[in-house]
Amino acid sequence: MVESARRRRAMQAAKAAGAQALLVTHGPDVRYLSGFTGSNGAVALFGGQVALFTDGRYTVQAKSEARGIRVVVDKRPAAVLAVEWLLQRKVKQCAFDASQTTVAALEIMRKAVPTISRRKFFLATQGLVAKLREVKEAGEIARIRRAAALGSALFEDVLEYVVAGVSEVEIAAQLEFVARREGADGMSFETIITSGPRTALPHGRASAAKLPRRGFVTMDFGVLLNGYCSDMTRTVHVGKGSEQELDVYHSVLEAQQAAVAAVAAGAECGDVDAAARSVLRKNKLAKWFSHSTGHGVGLEIHEGPRIAAKQKQKLEAGMVITIEPGVYLPGKFGVRIEDMVLVTAKGCEVLTAASPKAWIQV
Amino acid sequence: MVESARRRRAMQAAKAAGAQALLVTHGPDVRYLSGFTGSNGAVALFGGQVALFTDGRYTVQAKSEARGIRVVVDKRPAAVLAVEWLLQRKVKQCAFDASQTTVAALEIMRKAVPTISRRKFFLATQGLVAKLREVKEAGEIARIRRAAALGSALFEDVLEYVVAGVSEVEIAAQLEFVARREGADGMSFETIITSGPRTALPHGRASAAKLPRRGFVTMDFGVLLNGYCSDMTRTVHVGKGSEQELDVYHSVLEAQQAAVAAVAAGAECGDVDAAARSVLRKNKLAKWFSHSTGHGVGLEIHEGPRIAAKQKQKLEAGMVITIEPGVYLPGKFGVRIEDMVLVTAKGCEVLTAASPKAWIQV
Repeated sequence: MVESARRRRAMQAAKAAGAQALLVTHGPDVRYLSGFTGSNGAVALFGGQVALFTDGRYTVQAKSEARGIRVVVDKRPAAVLAVEWLLQRKVKQCAFDASQTTVAALEIMRKAVPTISRRKFFLATQGLVAKLREVKEAGEIARIRRAAALGSALFEDVLEYVVAGVSEVEIAAQLEFVARREGADGMSFETIITSGPRTALPHGRASAAKLPRRGFVTMDFGVLLNGYCSDMTRTVHVGKGSEQELDVYHSVLEAQQAAVAAVAAGAECGDVDAAARSVLRKNKLAKWFSHSTGHGVGLEIHEGPRIAAKQKQKLEAGMVITIEPGVYLPGKFGVRIEDMVLVTAKGCEVLTAASPKAWIQV
Repeated sequence: MVESARRRRAMQAAKAAGAQALLVTHGPDVRYLSGFTGSNGAVALFGGQVALFTDGRYTVQAKSEARGIRVVVDKRPAAVLAVEWLLQRKVKQCAFDASQTTVAALEIMRKAVPTISRRKFFLATQGLVAKLREVKEAGEIARIRRAAALGSALFEDVLEYVVAGVSEVEIAAQLEFVARREGADGMSFETIITSGPRTALPHGRASAAKLPRRGFVTMDFGVLLNGYCSDMTRTVHVGKGSEQELDVYHSVLEAQQAAVAAVAAGAECGDVDAAARSVLRKNKLAKWFSHSTGHGVGLEIHEGPRIAAKQKQKLEAGMVITIEPGVYLPGKFGVRIEDMVLVTAKGCEVLTAASPKAWIQV
């Protein structure tokens, strides 16, 4: 079972960090290690032993999803139950994820430990399971491939609705409807549809604004399919584009393609970011590229690695990342183009390749 | 401006907790105090001074949304910028929300403070702004009323799709499409559509399962409209119900109505929960009511107060809560009925009253 191999790797990572045991409470990590998809759960690992803790809402679901794992249901916080389980097993120190545990939650966990052992019991680690999740297994890649393919198919489907006078939310509604109809469990994040000057907002939501007779429309969206996220962006133009609009579009496209070309196992994330940024710098647009080039995608829409300036982390085969440079001219317009790519030994495979990136005028 | 009055109350609460200043990083709290809706922001309050910190993705949006507030944009973490701003103002101690700040985030904030002042700089508080948000202002109530009315209208709209052989996700797709078309910014949580034995999963997602010829269908959904959430549940029956199904349905309905009748300013939350639970106990079903009776709703789908056993908190006029008892018989079926209600001086107003609760056979 794939989850048991993951648990072995997680336990190894916890040991490497200096802990005897591992306590996991972050939803996607819990799912990764146990299969359980409910909103409240904790997984405790100690040597080869494992248990899942949740509450009464999830009794049936937890037992059906977390096969082969002991499930403990109780009204008290799942993390407290996990700590008690570890204490019963004489654990003296357990790793937890400081980047996923609130100060208040840690305090509650601490109170479950006898005062005498409290000071050393919790070992702060960061993203230990998230790190394992960065490199996807074959089964995960298959799922991500399907999610990306569905997202990509939606783009074509929604293009016919991209017409002057239609509102941004109508496009979002249509997109999300087709996504559901085609089997998506939902969207992987709030659909971004911006038009005209609103395309200068990198993360503007779909609003009631109507598409102009002439201007850009940016569509950034993703589906959730079998637990895995897709993420892509296309920017198209309603009516004839101005010279500046065409120039910016082609600069962003060139930057995006340069970054995609820089992706390969062994490449530094910062170099992929630099590949996009240097194209925009050459075209005097780098100043308006106000975010990083990309991020990992998987069970969560934003995972490691970060494809950003100066990131020394090296890409590994099996990572799935986005490449999404953009240029945003405040008050005027913006352009962003985003693909999902699978890192391979020699380069990458674009998972959203079915959606064209050449200038589209509708 | 409504936000400035909120900031005064927040600053008073921080002072009452013993701090000179307040640092807020939780998204809905940032929005409440500043109007800014981006995903990365921090608000610092010190006396009558206020500043909002975010990153380059949100330059335009922050300035347009957070009117009358100084906006600082930088690549470094928003909370670190806020701490530096407070230090420039000679602040010695600032309150933060321990229930919304991770152990790792606090560590980053701490490092921005000179070692000599570090030990006492951060005062852990919990839900200080969330507490203010529990009682809604007139403007918020108007928005919530519109969100609830839209949610309620959707139920009627979607009923025609509730037919044997249709899949749960098709119903979700239709519901979400109409929500968008009618102006919703999105759904306030992942739509729950369960059918047949899956209704025994209190939080099952919409799946590919097809509606049976005979059996329950539970629809638990909400819209997001102008930033505010709606939340409601109806359970209907496809085909003729069995005696047990009718009995359980009417017990849950009686429990739900008893809890609604117990709502009024001054009532204890635990007593509202007990009103529902005692009806189910009388009918020997309390054991299968495995969650709490309800929760506050507003900018977030789950807010205070908690309507749960033994909660001593008193309801106040202007709170908006859900009343949602349920009974879940594992492997058989489940029933949940949920309204959103506005607490008033003498009782409550059901905001989702347009959706009937009597037994519906489709």
